[in-house]
Amino acid sequence: MADSGFTIWFTGLSGSGKTTLAERVREVLLGRGLAVEWLDSSKIRREMNRDLGFTRSDIEANLRRIAYECRLLNRNGVIAIVSAISPYRDVRDRIRVDLVRFMEVYCRCPLETLVLRDEHDLYARAERGEIQNVAGMNAPYEEPLKPEVAVETDRETPEACVARIVRTAEILGYLTPVAPSGYTPEQEETIKRRLRDLGYM
Amino acid sequence: MADSGFTIWFTGLSGSGKTTLAERVREVLLGRGLAVEWLDSSKIRREMNRDLGFTRSDIEANLRRIAYECRLLNRNGVIAIVSAISPYRDVRDRIRVDLVRFMEVYCRCPLETLVLRDEHDLYARAERGEIQNVAGMNAPYEEPLKPEVAVETDRETPEACVARIVRTAEILGYLTPVAPSGYTPEQEETIKRRLRDLGYM
Repeated sequence: MADSGFTIWFTGLSGSGKTTLAERVREVLLGRGLAVEWLDSSKIRREMNRDLGFTRSDIEANLRRIAYECRLLNRNGVIAIVSAISPYRDVRDRIRVDLVRFMEVYCRCPLETLVLRDEHDLYARAERGEIQNVAGMNAPYEEPLKPEVAVETDRETPEACVARIVRTAEILGYLTPVAPSGYTPEQEETIKRRLRDLGYM
Repeated sequence: MADSGFTIWFTGLSGSGKTTLAERVREVLLGRGLAVEWLDSSKIRREMNRDLGFTRSDIEANLRRIAYECRLLNRNGVIAIVSAISPYRDVRDRIRVDLVRFMEVYCRCPLETLVLRDEHDLYARAERGEIQNVAGMNAPYEEPLKPEVAVETDRETPEACVARIVRTAEILGYLTPVAPSGYTPEQEETIKRRLRDLGYM
């Protein structure tokens, strides 16, 4: 059942490109006339979950509320795009099981690169011990073991990342393919082989 | 813009018929082929907001999260039906302003009738001081001053209540009218006069 609801879940460290890619994927899908909601974890914390801090259980509560929204939206035909550090693997995996039509996108970027870039002075402040709960620095981040897509945001262009995310959603049957895909048959085969190897096809 | 999203918010004391009417209104709207989500406050407390108790600020937090869901659903064309005691007038009124396409249904039933009926032994236990936070008994309930619909659930049949709720949504332009309405011209005029008097038309 293509073009009914599903969830694209962006995970990764702060500054790894989740927001940028979520926004661009959203634009592509809106351009196809689809109903899309973008749920950004920081925004939702500010608007709805101000009571929650950064203990493991508070992080989990925040993510489970976001997943609850996704479920409501998905079953009404709306695509949910989530951008959330979502550092705990088992929490993400349980959300995957709950939502069923789910796709995990890992925004991978080496911590050294993030520390160098550090647009919001986040990592520097964590290093100086001024702030806590910075995933990858003084708080855990558990990489996905089997994300549907892993993008290397320090090396790939946003366009290339977005194209691969959208194409993967098409191959998984979540989106109606828009021909041509722009990939060579070999590149298509690489994406499909990966999804088969991971057990998603 | 008929048949796009809007919210029907049922308020009233425990046992006043919110759940019954919400369920029946949902069936009518589903029967018209519309997308509908029913958000029941107690269910959402169990599933998503287990951290919240019954202080005024916790009640407000629960309702504001429900309203947040409504907003997401409504702007994607889904009708949200809420059943929630929602005892505080100013909280309901702020949600009304936020959601815009909003309709308040007050399930009015005298406390004496509820105490006599008392299917879940709720009011008796509150009377014996065994439980707290029972609206109308040992916790506040502020009646709506200007609900779009007030149903007298101790005297009207569920069918009559549902018909009036749905007809009101049609008159307000939230639903495409399904002819015939079943009301006499005089009854139609009564509903419209009420909405005009309240400033909703």
